[in-house]
Amino acid sequence: VPTLLPSGQFVASTRKLHVEPKSSPAGAPERLPFSKVTDEDLAYFRKILPGRTITDPDLVESSNVDWLKTVKGSSEVLLRPQTTEEVSQILRYCYNRNLAVNPQGGNTGLVGGSVPVYDEIILSTSLMNNILTFDNISGILTCQAGCVLENLSLYLEERDYIMPLDLGAKGSCQIGGNVATNAGGLRLLRYGSLHGTVLGLEVVLADGRVLDCLATLRKDNTGYDLKQLFIGSEGTLGVITAVSILCPRKPKSTNVVFLGCETFEELLKTFQLCRGMLGEILSAFEFLDSECMRLLNTHLKLPNPISDCPFYIVIETSGSDPDHDSQKLDNFLEEAIASTFVTDGTVATEESKIKALWSMRERVTEALTHDGFTYKYDISLPVERIYQLVTDMRQHLGDRAKSVVGYGHVGDGNLHLNITSPAKDPALLAAIEPFVYEWTASCQGSISAEHGLGLKKRNYIYYSKPSQAVALMGNIKAMLDPKGILNPYKTLPDNLK
Amino acid sequence: VPTLLPSGQFVASTRKLHVEPKSSPAGAPERLPFSKVTDEDLAYFRKILPGRTITDPDLVESSNVDWLKTVKGSSEVLLRPQTTEEVSQILRYCYNRNLAVNPQGGNTGLVGGSVPVYDEIILSTSLMNNILTFDNISGILTCQAGCVLENLSLYLEERDYIMPLDLGAKGSCQIGGNVATNAGGLRLLRYGSLHGTVLGLEVVLADGRVLDCLATLRKDNTGYDLKQLFIGSEGTLGVITAVSILCPRKPKSTNVVFLGCETFEELLKTFQLCRGMLGEILSAFEFLDSECMRLLNTHLKLPNPISDCPFYIVIETSGSDPDHDSQKLDNFLEEAIASTFVTDGTVATEESKIKALWSMRERVTEALTHDGFTYKYDISLPVERIYQLVTDMRQHLGDRAKSVVGYGHVGDGNLHLNITSPAKDPALLAAIEPFVYEWTASCQGSISAEHGLGLKKRNYIYYSKPSQAVALMGNIKAMLDPKGILNPYKTLPDNLK
Repeated sequence: VPTLLPSGQFVASTRKLHVEPKSSPAGAPERLPFSKVTDEDLAYFRKILPGRTITDPDLVESSNVDWLKTVKGSSEVLLRPQTTEEVSQILRYCYNRNLAVNPQGGNTGLVGGSVPVYDEIILSTSLMNNILTFDNISGILTCQAGCVLENLSLYLEERDYIMPLDLGAKGSCQIGGNVATNAGGLRLLRYGSLHGTVLGLEVVLADGRVLDCLATLRKDNTGYDLKQLFIGSEGTLGVITAVSILCPRKPKSTNVVFLGCETFEELLKTFQLCRGMLGEILSAFEFLDSECMRLLNTHLKLPNPISDCPFYIVIETSGSDPDHDSQKLDNFLEEAIASTFVTDGTVATEESKIKALWSMRERVTEALTHDGFTYKYDISLPVERIYQLVTDMRQHLGDRAKSVVGYGHVGDGNLHLNITSPAKDPALLAAIEPFVYEWTASCQGSISAEHGLGLKKRNYIYYSKPSQAVALMGNIKAMLDPKGILNPYKTLPDNLK
Repeated sequence: VPTLLPSGQFVASTRKLHVEPKSSPAGAPERLPFSKVTDEDLAYFRKILPGRTITDPDLVESSNVDWLKTVKGSSEVLLRPQTTEEVSQILRYCYNRNLAVNPQGGNTGLVGGSVPVYDEIILSTSLMNNILTFDNISGILTCQAGCVLENLSLYLEERDYIMPLDLGAKGSCQIGGNVATNAGGLRLLRYGSLHGTVLGLEVVLADGRVLDCLATLRKDNTGYDLKQLFIGSEGTLGVITAVSILCPRKPKSTNVVFLGCETFEELLKTFQLCRGMLGEILSAFEFLDSECMRLLNTHLKLPNPISDCPFYIVIETSGSDPDHDSQKLDNFLEEAIASTFVTDGTVATEESKIKALWSMRERVTEALTHDGFTYKYDISLPVERIYQLVTDMRQHLGDRAKSVVGYGHVGDGNLHLNITSPAKDPALLAAIEPFVYEWTASCQGSISAEHGLGLKKRNYIYYSKPSQAVALMGNIKAMLDPKGILNPYKTLPDNLK
């Protein structure tokens, strides 16, 4: 059973396994000519990782399958190092033996990047879960890659700080995996991307060399910023073993508002008004459409907290003065209602009601899993275009789809487009793709805003990246991992020269 | 005459030229075996850049000298392209001919990175100064690399936005050069580094290939984030021709406070208090010591706005509600005075007084130029250590130095340590270096927080970067610029294998 996400939010363990056929661009290419693991190899691993070289098929199983249950590898070895030196020993050995390696964090990825495709050795960072240092003056945290995001959050909150990122998968995902996939999430609007907040990384390269870029400084202009290469490289360039990250102070007050709008244009006008009037205390501006609300009502029995509307907004503020924050919020709401951008709304300042309102946004993913087989797209677009894709897709598919829903991070121009059907439906898929990618490319959008490319989307990269850029990616891969042993079949397209 | 900075703030043109001897680690290495510019080459450049191929020595002169007047090249050609295609044509030609090229923006760099060392062709981006697009909803600006920072600021302020960075050199420096040196400046504390705010770059590679990574999206996880390589690479990996950048909303209120403290410990306590109480509206926390104040009084006749103290702080707030901001500031000041962290202070809310208080911090550089020959260091340290270096240096040098002063960005852990002597003094230099670098390395600090390495600091890189990292930088340089024609003698150390 794959690692479950917190509070039983997801039902991965009961879903049937779905694997793309080899002929699909999302399916696996042929196995590359890596060596196969021998008894001698296992003996070596057992010597350096006694008791942490797992070969019992029942125990390896959960690391072979991603949590969406859409990709399944057939690895027979799971290695659980505790130190950077152990990771280095493993990779040095695998590099010499030409053994492929699948680095794995919390295995919560959505694009098949976190599990083996064939018999790659699984290198799990789960036991590398020590906090190394925390500087209470600067807010700089240094920790091993396997620390679970939620544990880091709890540790920091006791010290009056928070992590600069927050995700639905926080109960399972690990900071190393977050960095490797350049995870976005709910706080990006306020605190920016990991390219800005990660200050340092320690990385073990394919041949076992340890690259120490674990600076704990806000500013360092001594040469190329090498750590940036590994942020978002999905384990294909090196194994991240430690992270230093700049953490913001814990806000003293948090408010959440749930609003309804008649049109997406009015939703955008509300966004503009909100940015002007809430300014520096705005920490999230998320949306869902009425189709999402229908699924929340139907499958999860969550009642609509306001009257029915075509669009719903979740706005969060966090600031350092509760009175000032609520005054700003009141002024904004007054103006939003007076200008008729907004037709209904409710405000939460207590923790339980805040959680309840947030769940309307956060539990859409779960509601979708009950609606049928789900085709998931994570698209970045100029913010004024994001809902047009949902409307166009709905019209394009007609009654071939069961549900076509849109939700996501308005503040970041990031749409989660999800399409369901009663069961897996190749004809529906053929109607969706490449339509969705072509539509996105025509707006200079990104076909993966925050999920990465992994196995499933690697061959669609040309919709968002010019061929010169993809070729340069290939050069970097060849430079850092000339044998290609690190997370093969991921991120880079099959037809790379 | 080098480009002057705004309001006659600097007196570069009257300073005598100082060039490091070849034997110094900061001096130039031997000229590498690049081709020399021939009449045929000039004919080609004149054909593709009619009227913009400058060979008049008087006109080329100002581009041969950096504004500190410490490095002087002997280039005979200055090229002024207007388009990316022209930059591509120039580099393709130079690459084939093995001609070295010095990319140049506003030529305001402090480490000799922006001028030729020998006869490199100067490729100036000054005429590439068009704003390409601005999206008023997302705040994303796209422009050519040669746009002057202050012009971009003025353009944005008319549209209710600001640039996420601000520098003393804003009247001359160009956004392409800012990105190439990963400029920090006065707003980094609030808006983060360029690694987070730059969303896309267009870069021409050494062989003339155009790499289009000019995305205008907040989120894009389709493959490696290649643009990051060029941020802070000082023109050694490619020529940045266009930039897209995320701009914050213009604040509705700004306040500045000037405070005095008895000890650096109390200054740090004030910083902690300030971060807690001003929270999201804090936009700068800068400091200067009493030696800086003495130089401001003596050389610029600027009177101390408060009573004499060992340390001074400049705090800036910017927010969306003037009443809330001043209430937060009042509460903070009350607490700071009650706790006796602060002994005196003054507040400014009007623009003229704000400017006057800021000038106490911003004009220290200028005051130093009147004090004598200046040795400049730009050091990143754990914030609690930053002043110890000044104290230790003062004790170490005794009366060998004229003045030893410290100022800088407390919020970023960034110290500007400056040492003056009546004239250039090799014995003094030998007492300062490598002492300052060894001290910094012993605290895992950075020997260049925001200025870069350029020519002058390239050989000191090992004080802040492990050899594995420097070797990898060399691999990247060889991959992107195999002939090494782009900004040679800069950033990478001479002894690179």
